[in-house]
Amino acid sequence: MISKKMQQEVAGSSAIRAMFLEGKEMAAKIGAENVYDFSLGNPMTPVPAEYNQAIIDAVQTESSLELHGYMDNAGYPETRKAVADNLNKRFGTDFEGKHITMTVGAAGALNIVFKTILDPGDEVLALAPYFGEYRGYVANHQGVLKEVAPNTDTFQPDFEDLRSKITEKTKAVIINNPVNPTGVVYSEETIQVIAEIMDEKQKAYGHEIYMVSDEPYRELVYDGNQAPFLTKYYDNTFVTYSFSKSLSIPGERIGYVAVSPSMEGCEQACSALSVANRILGFVNAPSLMQKALTQAIDATTDVAYYDRNRKLIYDKLIGLGFTCAKPQGAFYLFIKSPDADEKAFVQTAKKHHILLVGGTTFSCPGYVRLAYCVSYEMIERSLPAFEELAKEYGL
Amino acid sequence: MISKKMQQEVAGSSAIRAMFLEGKEMAAKIGAENVYDFSLGNPMTPVPAEYNQAIIDAVQTESSLELHGYMDNAGYPETRKAVADNLNKRFGTDFEGKHITMTVGAAGALNIVFKTILDPGDEVLALAPYFGEYRGYVANHQGVLKEVAPNTDTFQPDFEDLRSKITEKTKAVIINNPVNPTGVVYSEETIQVIAEIMDEKQKAYGHEIYMVSDEPYRELVYDGNQAPFLTKYYDNTFVTYSFSKSLSIPGERIGYVAVSPSMEGCEQACSALSVANRILGFVNAPSLMQKALTQAIDATTDVAYYDRNRKLIYDKLIGLGFTCAKPQGAFYLFIKSPDADEKAFVQTAKKHHILLVGGTTFSCPGYVRLAYCVSYEMIERSLPAFEELAKEYGL
Repeated sequence: MISKKMQQEVAGSSAIRAMFLEGKEMAAKIGAENVYDFSLGNPMTPVPAEYNQAIIDAVQTESSLELHGYMDNAGYPETRKAVADNLNKRFGTDFEGKHITMTVGAAGALNIVFKTILDPGDEVLALAPYFGEYRGYVANHQGVLKEVAPNTDTFQPDFEDLRSKITEKTKAVIINNPVNPTGVVYSEETIQVIAEIMDEKQKAYGHEIYMVSDEPYRELVYDGNQAPFLTKYYDNTFVTYSFSKSLSIPGERIGYVAVSPSMEGCEQACSALSVANRILGFVNAPSLMQKALTQAIDATTDVAYYDRNRKLIYDKLIGLGFTCAKPQGAFYLFIKSPDADEKAFVQTAKKHHILLVGGTTFSCPGYVRLAYCVSYEMIERSLPAFEELAKEYGL
Repeated sequence: MISKKMQQEVAGSSAIRAMFLEGKEMAAKIGAENVYDFSLGNPMTPVPAEYNQAIIDAVQTESSLELHGYMDNAGYPETRKAVADNLNKRFGTDFEGKHITMTVGAAGALNIVFKTILDPGDEVLALAPYFGEYRGYVANHQGVLKEVAPNTDTFQPDFEDLRSKITEKTKAVIINNPVNPTGVVYSEETIQVIAEIMDEKQKAYGHEIYMVSDEPYRELVYDGNQAPFLTKYYDNTFVTYSFSKSLSIPGERIGYVAVSPSMEGCEQACSALSVANRILGFVNAPSLMQKALTQAIDATTDVAYYDRNRKLIYDKLIGLGFTCAKPQGAFYLFIKSPDADEKAFVQTAKKHHILLVGGTTFSCPGYVRLAYCVSYEMIERSLPAFEELAKEYGL
């Protein structure tokens, strides 16, 4: 028999898989063009041509043993330097290569951070609504995840709830910005207040409380917004990043952790991340992707593509009477369920061939997530179905 | 402060790093050509040209979103099928794609297997001497690693010790074949005896005891040897594999788990491995590498290169009076330390500019590991230093 914990995980995962298969069956029955699948956060913009060219150049010009070989568990020195330089140029930070650990995506990055900082029973706070995978990542390292409530008018965090949830055992607060699933960008003021609360608490308890920034959507921001860069507001910060969304390469598993040079015990933390890469079995970020990134670090994706989608679907939903916080980043809308039971609403939407994800997945029942990283044409085709859905709820 | 466990890990890792730096300093002082570094298990044969061509072809011909995109956590169906077909062709097995989970190397493969099968406190047996990383991999999932003694004449396992170490809590036995660090290949008879003991014990305790086969060195075998394919001898078997050594691509982190179709609860185990890939933060094996592998699954490395090295260094060492089991696979020799204190021998060898790894790392003190995945020329240059070393010990 597999382990008891995994039996539960498989059962939970089967439910998601069942939904996915239901979508497939629906497509087979009524035609894929008549199914409006807004359930997946999968990038849709083309991979930048210079990134693919950098891959080919590396294969054609580098020694194959160097290209596909082992390097320091933290990554190639030149890749780490390229990331540091890129951050410094954009955010006025002062990273050096030694502060950067290349990782197997943001998921790998978060896991090596938690391995580095958590002893069994340590608590990690997540700001609801949040990416459900955090639960597993914290549990992997025997940590305990606790939730901070949102202010559901703005979907900025509820500061008083944050203050009350930090205890002697709190080791970290995860800050995902822009936020999956709401698309909200936490403002500079929000970050300043969070930093003040955390700093007050780390002084009161006499130990570090780390900010763990999870920002795979950093580059996907609209209307001139930008997520504040957290090391500028709080010293004990780990920034975790993935190139999955910014370069549309989620399958390649490439990201990094940047450690604030001002972190207490920065050098030891950097060493520990590298060791954690090894112990957890990541070993290192895929080598060819590191090489390509070194050359194409300035490549960017077509944010305008998502922005066009955002405007179309947001304006339509608001026009129909739905309620949702205005998304300023990522590629999600978080819609208030017009049915008190969000699961019933997800089922009703499905009747209209619209696939959404219930907010319970993100620890925020009563809402649903819509991912607009789809084709503009699919959104256009779906609009009559949303009209029907609104009618059904008397909006 | 980082976690208590990681503080220990960082301290241990610093010792290894210190040795590595010492080697670098030695090279700076006396010239790299005069340092004989046999400490690292890093492949030296060129990456097969068809593998690099498969990468370029994939980048030039496939849709970039498909090429670098998410797929099922278990991998692309066509890659999984290519692996299954390749195994069936070579070993007469009957895998289907659904039995294969593509992984982030063998390290990723072992970690998703342990996540899948271990509840806290479950025991895993490793046959000494063994790859030290197993300790961390088992501990990651709150398992307890126990050691089985070797028969040091042949470095086949001590069967009676194996029998006595299997308890009610034993969930798995790791079998690494060919063996790092000895280079020994466990014979078919060895595997049959292990399978009998395990089968008897799983009947006695009324629950599965899994064979976890770790075989990154499967393709590196000499003199017509071949490591027995374990699913043919024992049903409850997970085979973990990496292409790191067979294609010289250790930096790319690509491997797989193959689940025996005859395993009790095979389907649930396969689902769990895929879920574990996600939860542990691997998510999936790097996508471009999966694509390249699908095309170049039959590519092989130049085993003759290692074989030539093996003969040169083994014959020389035996000729000088050193004792070591004849290596039939991998690229390691495990030499009996002529000094009762193996650490002293490692230091003495270093005086002669020979870098070796002490057997304590592999839970087998009194021996040292020599990795001959180096250039033939370096071995030739090193021979006088081995002569001096032998003389110093009066061999």
